[in-house]
Amino acid sequence: MNSSKLLDKAVEQFASLPGVGRKTALKFVLHLLKRKPEEVDCFIQSITNLKTTIRECKICHNITDSELCEICADKKRDSSTICVVESIKDILSIEGTSQYNGLYHVLGGIISPMDGIGPADLHIASLIERVEQGNIHEIIFALSATIEGDTTGYYIFKKLKNKEELVISTIAKGISIGNDLEYTDELTLGRSIINRIRFSFNE
Amino acid sequence: MNSSKLLDKAVEQFASLPGVGRKTALKFVLHLLKRKPEEVDCFIQSITNLKTTIRECKICHNITDSELCEICADKKRDSSTICVVESIKDILSIEGTSQYNGLYHVLGGIISPMDGIGPADLHIASLIERVEQGNIHEIIFALSATIEGDTTGYYIFKKLKNKEELVISTIAKGISIGNDLEYTDELTLGRSIINRIRFSFNE
Repeated sequence: MNSSKLLDKAVEQFASLPGVGRKTALKFVLHLLKRKPEEVDCFIQSITNLKTTIRECKICHNITDSELCEICADKKRDSSTICVVESIKDILSIEGTSQYNGLYHVLGGIISPMDGIGPADLHIASLIERVEQGNIHEIIFALSATIEGDTTGYYIFKKLKNKEELVISTIAKGISIGNDLEYTDELTLGRSIINRIRFSFNE
Repeated sequence: MNSSKLLDKAVEQFASLPGVGRKTALKFVLHLLKRKPEEVDCFIQSITNLKTTIRECKICHNITDSELCEICADKKRDSSTICVVESIKDILSIEGTSQYNGLYHVLGGIISPMDGIGPADLHIASLIERVEQGNIHEIIFALSATIEGDTTGYYIFKKLKNKEELVISTIAKGISIGNDLEYTDELTLGRSIINRIRFSFNE
């Protein structure tokens, strides 16, 4: 309860952001109140642009300012490989590794009956369509190492398994680089033993 | 570096809020992207209102939607006592205690030569004016227990000390309720001994 109803409303709006409580929201609002009007205008404009200008890439559902995202439009990338991810954030993480040069496909979520999200709610049909159009050699699933992630991957795998010559893979699950074995949970350690990688002198 | 420049700009704007890094800013922006346009409109409107409608109370510099803030306009409050605080946030904290029924005066900062903030940058003149107009019996300083807080209090005290019958006090500094003596720092403990309060059977 503040002395200004409009302040209260602004605090309420900021508190609706993920992980923001009322105290933090108030801190944000008081900070904005101290700023110059033109700086606040910039802030408002950037949110307005989010709503009006930013849209989904019509191929991979990444976000973009134009019809195709920069990754799909980049001729230098390997267009025969698609990495399937849950959200845009995952693209940023994978791009951050500089280890992948193919294209992406954003599902926009993950199959989760508990949350009422089924295959029809995700961009699975458009992924199948991309494969149907040919020229795709490999699909890599980069989904969360959870039951939902595995289910989603398996669902898509079943839809695609009749495609001969299509390689379907999933990112490796195992112990984190730099982690002590001692502190790795048993499930992960078990998985990393099953999926052990043979030493090779050719590499 | 995202695939959308507008997204980058929005992330940059959110990352300019206090305590928000780029990862958190991205989380906020992706959250807003998922929201319905009318919800985003509400968000934008609440920030626009901050800029256009919210102003300072002309008596105490609290923020308000009208000419006077709710506290100054409240006839039930004791208008002979003024609690001097650094910022609006402090009013909220003190109001939260329900232990104070007087008015406030927001300085808008604290004397801090290191940050280039001198007495002229604060609402000190308008405080002196409120006292000059009479009808004020007590001034309570509720400032931070820092050198800057003490300096600011002392500066105002010197300006007001010629006023006879004006009581000038400062909130008590001592050990926090519920704290062990063992874990209280020496400065605070020392202060709490100097400012010890005599037991009284009348209270």
